[in-house]
Parts: sequence; structure tokens; C-alpha cells
Amino acid sequence: MQEKEKEKQLGITVKKDGDFSEWYNQVVLRAELADYAPVRGFMVVRPTAYAIWEKIQSYFNSVIARHGVRNAYFPLLIPKSFFEKEAEHAAGFEPELAWIESRGEDAEERVAIRPTSETIMYDSYAKWIRSWRDLPFRINQWCNVLRWEVKQCKLFLRTREFLWQEGHCVYATEKECEKEALLFLEEYKKLCETLIAIPVIAGEKTESERFAGAKRSFTIEALMPDGRALQMGTSHNLGQGFAKVFGIGFLDESGKSAVPWQNSWGFSTRLIGAIVMVHGDDKGLVMPPAVATHKAVVVPIIFDKTKEKVLKKAKEIAKSLEKFGVILDDRDSYSAGWKFNEWELKGMPLRVEVGPKDIEKSQAVVVRRDNGKKEIVKEKELPKKIESMLEEMQREMFGKAKKFLESNTVEANTWGEFTKALEAKKMVLANFCNNPACEKGIKEETTATSRCVPFGQKKSMGKCVRCGKETETKVLFAKGY
Amino acid sequence: MQEKEKEKQLGITVKKDGDFSEWYNQVVLRAELADYAPVRGFMVVRPTAYAIWEKIQSYFNSVIARHGVRNAYFPLLIPKSFFEKEAEHAAGFEPELAWIESRGEDAEERVAIRPTSETIMYDSYAKWIRSWRDLPFRINQWCNVLRWEVKQCKLFLRTREFLWQEGHCVYATEKECEKEALLFLEEYKKLCETLIAIPVIAGEKTESERFAGAKRSFTIEALMPDGRALQMGTSHNLGQGFAKVFGIGFLDESGKSAVPWQNSWGFSTRLIGAIVMVHGDDKGLVMPPAVATHKAVVVPIIFDKTKEKVLKKAKEIAKSLEKFGVILDDRDSYSAGWKFNEWELKGMPLRVEVGPKDIEKSQAVVVRRDNGKKEIVKEKELPKKIESMLEEMQREMFGKAKKFLESNTVEANTWGEFTKALEAKKMVLANFCNNPACEKGIKEETTATSRCVPFGQKKSMGKCVRCGKETETKVLFAKGY
Repeated sequence: MQEKEKEKQLGITVKKDGDFSEWYNQVVLRAELADYAPVRGFMVVRPTAYAIWEKIQSYFNSVIARHGVRNAYFPLLIPKSFFEKEAEHAAGFEPELAWIESRGEDAEERVAIRPTSETIMYDSYAKWIRSWRDLPFRINQWCNVLRWEVKQCKLFLRTREFLWQEGHCVYATEKECEKEALLFLEEYKKLCETLIAIPVIAGEKTESERFAGAKRSFTIEALMPDGRALQMGTSHNLGQGFAKVFGIGFLDESGKSAVPWQNSWGFSTRLIGAIVMVHGDDKGLVMPPAVATHKAVVVPIIFDKTKEKVLKKAKEIAKSLEKFGVILDDRDSYSAGWKFNEWELKGMPLRVEVGPKDIEKSQAVVVRRDNGKKEIVKEKELPKKIESMLEEMQREMFGKAKKFLESNTVEANTWGEFTKALEAKKMVLANFCNNPACEKGIKEETTATSRCVPFGQKKSMGKCVRCGKETETKVLFAKGY
Repeated sequence: MQEKEKEKQLGITVKKDGDFSEWYNQVVLRAELADYAPVRGFMVVRPTAYAIWEKIQSYFNSVIARHGVRNAYFPLLIPKSFFEKEAEHAAGFEPELAWIESRGEDAEERVAIRPTSETIMYDSYAKWIRSWRDLPFRINQWCNVLRWEVKQCKLFLRTREFLWQEGHCVYATEKECEKEALLFLEEYKKLCETLIAIPVIAGEKTESERFAGAKRSFTIEALMPDGRALQMGTSHNLGQGFAKVFGIGFLDESGKSAVPWQNSWGFSTRLIGAIVMVHGDDKGLVMPPAVATHKAVVVPIIFDKTKEKVLKKAKEIAKSLEKFGVILDDRDSYSAGWKFNEWELKGMPLRVEVGPKDIEKSQAVVVRRDNGKKEIVKEKELPKKIESMLEEMQREMFGKAKKFLESNTVEANTWGEFTKALEAKKMVLANFCNNPACEKGIKEETTATSRCVPFGQKKSMGKCVRCGKETETKVLFAKGY
């Protein structure tokens, strides 16, 4: 037996509620979602994970097309002078830039690989946008970006190169600009909830956590099983700062020159890491059906005498379930038990077992990946039943995650309650003064950071959990990824 | 009036059969397909062109899925030692590599941006492939690559960064490997013919033009209106060379260690440049309907008195044509004439005009972009008629291009005929000895290169057009892009 196959048979050797970090790495590696690359801090996105990414892309492309956003592609390399135009932005990204070696060409400017594309895109925008007729101007880009992280690599969550989408829009008014910044955040929330079954808390970033160069930053935050928050997507009202330094202007309807407003918004392949963490179990990955390309596998139970009959029936059944992207696992060289383990490890939502006894009774056994529930289903009812089981599974996976989020988000009124909650791996809502110095203190003492000022709060007077100053709003804190 | 709008009204100011190169640049820039980037040799792919690329991606993704290929994503940066493993490959790409500046980290190896991904992918393949059960192993990647060209940038055709797909497959036998290398080439040919309406000549590359590190290279070549050939896609039988140096091995069914065979195949965004060149005319771009996201535009003909009625009808008609991705151009601030020009410049396959007189007669006027043919169509027949007009247009665009290719590909038996044909901007088929020295001589004297040894030739004895040696096959020569 091959080393790799042995590994697969072993499956995941640690418990999710034991060594969570090691469990995560094992699931990602053994479910063949990703692998480490030869250059430190880089990763390979393997086909199983890339298919998730494609599903997310396809979902989101139809969402943004509806909102008038068009996809485009801008250059990988950005001139040094561009980074320097917006001071805060420059300061935010400078430490993590990867520069290209000089080739000794004449009049050559130093260039770096994009860590994000504001500057390179807005240089073009300044050429393209002339009139109020060109606004709103909405472009999105799917691409790779590179940030030379010094912290240790964590597959999908922290790698030097990652894949993402970045939307960059331009508007005549701030009202419209902010409205759409919030619209795209709302779409991110829907994506998380309906496609990958992960509940999130939406809100505004505090000053300390704001995007480099933004006027206001908005975020959706999810809670991982180890009590850490994961930023799932952000959206920024960039104000007019970039427009001014990149010279983006337009003539308004009355013929006067004006400076437009901009927003940008992005999410990345870290969403795949969140799927693993939130839904996975001791057997491996559990794929939310909505994001799975293949929603069920048909496994024939082979005995020598009935082999042909069973294979024929399994094929028929797989054919009848085509619309679920069913895979027929008729590989000769593996046992049914080995296949069960492999598909469980890889998170296949449903398993359909077909054996000689099932054929006698015109039935099949359908097993749900998330809770192991088995159902005996009449053959002719399979397509309908599978559809409803998938829907139920998606709904229940979201419900379970939502319950976890709710029961692990607590309020704290004192510093003691605050630190205790963090130690108990909770997210904490607490009154907070929004002073960067206070926030720095919290971070230094607890390693927790502010995640957001959640939307939809009622005015809730109370003392800042850190400095005691009277405040009006609560802020969400947690240790972060 | 804005500068940009003036430009648009001007449209294309040179003739396609006049200054072809300037005509091409104007179409690409003014139809908003692409723009120059601030870093020399780089380009911005604007939404109109990116939508073509997405259409090509979507077509090709379903083709390769059918052949068992899965998409994945490998790192942007490749260690120096990887390039050095396969000597020919290294020599081929070394001059065009962009290296990353050292960050002074310990034990750090010099890394470059991928010019192609053989080496970085095969490093992973060596870890993943163990057994005959893992074969064939087929992966494709859509990504950006970077080759530091020194020649002048030509939008879509020669830029330092470009987008492409690269398929990389591994097989137990050479027979299977070569069979599929040819299968993917055949799929490229189909893509060109059916999706972008461009006929190609398929064949094998001569030794001089072979991919760096390949055993055999196959290509499809198209002819541009200026008499130059454009390589539209290539496919390579890589032999076992990469497998050996990257340590890709597998245990065969009998348990013996074996070295697999590999192929790789790719096409790039230069296909978009080919669409412009082959189909465009003096008014601008002409989009083959099959690759157009929006296949028709509805333009209401507005007069003050009948404005509301016409807009309402135009909206109804647009609604009834939704499945063609129809755009309703109801912009108030532009005249119908201005809109006609703009959509012609941008290559919109069909224009549907709706004016007050048309409404009286329950009809609309449909105009084909490629030949200007107008048809008066009864409103209720529009969906059916538009469908057939689009099909006809696609077929006729291909037919026209095929006729051009055929009438501009000639045979030459003597050096005189050969050079004369090249001067007359033809592709030339000639007996050739396949000696690299001979090929070098031809290139130096005429700037033409061998494009391929076309498939499906009968044995045709004849003297090498260069050295006079007796040979068996004809080789296709042309000046290339």
C-alpha cells in the first residue's frame, strides 16, 4: 500500500476539540484542499478547494452583474510612486511589498507586486472617467495578490499570496458611495449565510482597524470553533482621498469640475478555510451542499456474484441523479469501506449506497455527511428525496453554526468579565470609548482586537470596558486570525 | 463635449487595409478592450475584453471537465533551483524572468515570477502521484504569467504579463500522453472555429520552434490580415524529461516503479487580439455572436412627441430578447446616431432600432454589424429571427475568414516563389529539410519562421526550398507575431 493511501486510511488523527490547529492542518492536507508550496508562506490550491472557489466566483459574479459591476484585469506590477501618493495607504502596505529586481533598463522605476489594486486601478480610472455620464463606474477584479507576511503561514488563512476579488467603484455623491459600500457588504453576508452556511456579524471597523486610506471600513466577522474571529469580507468608503491624489475628476451635469467618491470591497480564499473550521469534524471536511460541485457519491457494494448487476444499477442511479453532480465511484481497486472513509474525509454531502439487497427491494441507502443520518429511499423517489435532504442539510448546518455563534458571543460590563470571556474563547460585546490608545492597551494585554461596531445597536450607555469613560455603543472584541 | 466622447465620435481614423498596425491599436483602445499600463510592456484588460475572456473560459472549462481535467492554482513565485532542473527549459525562459528582490531572510532562495508553471506544478505532482491509480492525472490552471519581453508591447499579442490557461497532465504511457496532447489541440481548434470564428491550421512545430523542454510541440496557426501568422494555442508532449528531474514516479499495476509521461497545453488572451484583427473593420470591432455576452442592443429612436411610447416599446422588445443578453440603450444624453456609432465601434453583433413608425407597423429594424444588412422584422417574430440572424452571422464570419486563409496560403517550389509569396503577405507551404541551420537562414533572410508541419499531409517528395535537399513533407512558413 502506498504511503498516501495509508495516510488516507488513517484519516484525521487528532480531535477537532483537542488540538484544533493540528486538526485544521490535517483536514486541509488530507482532504486534498491545499498543500504547502516550496517557497515559504505560499500554498497550492488543489482541485477540491479550487472547485469551491469557482462556485463562490460563479455565485458572486451573478450578484455583482445584477448591480452593474463588470469584471476586468489590471497589471500585477505597481510603480513605487503610486504607493507613495496616498500616505496612509503607503504606510499600511509598504512593509509587506515584494519588489522586482532592477533589470538595469533606462528610466526604469522600481515596481512591486500588487498587495491590493487601488493605486494601479485608479491611475486608469483617472484616464477613463470624464463626465457624470460615466458614473457610477463599477469594476471588479478576480486576481492573486501578494503580501509578504512575516507570521507563520496558515493554509487559506494567512499566506503570502492569495486569491481574492476586489471591487472598486466610483460615484458622484458620498451618499451613493456609502450606500453601495453597505450593499456589497450585505451581499457578502448573504453569500456567507446561504452559500457556505456561515453566520456573521456585520459592523463598522474602529479607527485602529480601518483599511489603510479609507474613511470608513465595514466588515463581516465569523466566529471559529477555537474562539477566534475571522474577517470574512470587508467594504470601504474610501472618501475622496484616492480620487484627489490620482486625479480622478468629472464634469457634473451643470458642467462644473467635481471630485468623485469611491468604495472598494473584497473577500478572499480564506472563506475556504472558514468552511473547514466551522463545519469540519473528526472525520474531516463537511461541505455545505450549496457550495459543493458534487453533492452526492454513489458507492456500489460489490460482491463477486452480484458485481455486474450492482454496477449496472449504481450507474443507472448515478445517471438519474446527474443534476446533483453525482460521482459514481466504481473504482475497482478500493473497497467500499475505504471509499466511505475517503468521501467522508473529503466532505461529500451525501453518500448513496447500492448493494445486492437494496436492488432486491428497489431501494438505496442515503447517508448524510454532517450527522451520519441514514435513510432508506425507494429508487424512484431518490431524486426528490436527495433534493430535500440536501436542503435540510444546508439549513441545519447553518442553524448549528448560528447557534454556536450566538451562544459564544457574550456581553461584558467590567474588565474582569471581559478578560474572563476571552479566556473562555468567547467573542465579547462591551462598551468601548473608540480611543486607539485604549484599543492598543486591550490588544497588548489580551491579544484580542476590536472586530467591529455591530450594526443595528440601540444606544446603550455604559462605561468603556478599558478606561471607564462613558460611551454610547458596544464594540465586538475577539482574538483574531 | 468631453475629450473621450470626441474620440468616440471620431471613431477609427485609419483604414484597416491602410496602416494595419495603427488601425489595430485604435480599435483596441477606442472600443475599450484594453489600455496601456503605467509600467512599460503591461496592459489593462478592460471589461469589454474581459467579458470575452470569461466567455472563452466558460466554454473551455466545460470542455476540459468532460475530459476529466480539474482546475487548481499554483504559486506565482518559483525558486531558482527549479528552473535549473530541466536544462532546455531553463535556457528558454531565463532571459525573460522577473526576479524578486531579496528581503535578506535566512536561507532564502532567489525566486522569480512564473513565466509558465511546469516546474512549480511538477514539484507538487512528485508529492501527490504515487500509484497507477492516480493516473491519468489532469490539472489545468487559469492564471497570469510574466515574461520580460524586450520587443515593443502590442496589446493582447505581446505584453510582459498576460492571462492564460495551462493544462498539465501525467500518464502511464506515451501513447496516452500523445493522444491527449493531440486531443486538447483539437479542442483548441474547435474553440477557434466555433466560438471566435477563426480558422486555423494544425500541425507539429519544427525542432527550432519546439517548446523549451518538450519532446514534440503541436500548434494551431491563424493568418492575420497583414499576412502574419498568429500562434493561437500549443500543446506539448513533454516526454519523461520533467518527470525524471522532478522525481515524479509511480508504481505500476505489477508493483514496479515507473516514470510517467507528461503533456502541457495552453492558450492566452492573445485570442482576443486575433478576434480584433480577423473580424474588425474600418468602423471598429466586430464580435462573433457566439463569444459576445450581449448579442444585440435595442436603440429607441426618440422624438419629443412619441418619446414615452417608443421607450415603453423598446423596453418590451428588450425584455422579449433577454436570452440574447440584450442591452437597452435608453440613455437620454446621447443621440441615436451617436449610439449607432458607439455600438458599431464596440462590435455589437446586432442593432435593433425601434422608432414611432416601426411601432405603427408592429416591427423593428435589425442591423447586422458585420455586413450592415438591414432586416425589417415583425415584432412577434423578433426572438426567432434574431436567433437565426446570429447563427447566420457567426457562420458567415467564419466562412469569410476561412476563404481568406485558403486564398492566402500558397505553395512554393523554389526560393524565388517562396520569397515572392512572403512579400505578397501569404503563408507559404514548401518542402523543407527540417534542418535548424536551414531554418535559421530563412529567418535571417526573410524574417519568416516555420509555423508548423501541417497534419494530414500526403507524402509529397520535393526539394527543400532553402537547401535543395530531397524531403518528404511540406512545412508552413510565415512572418509571425
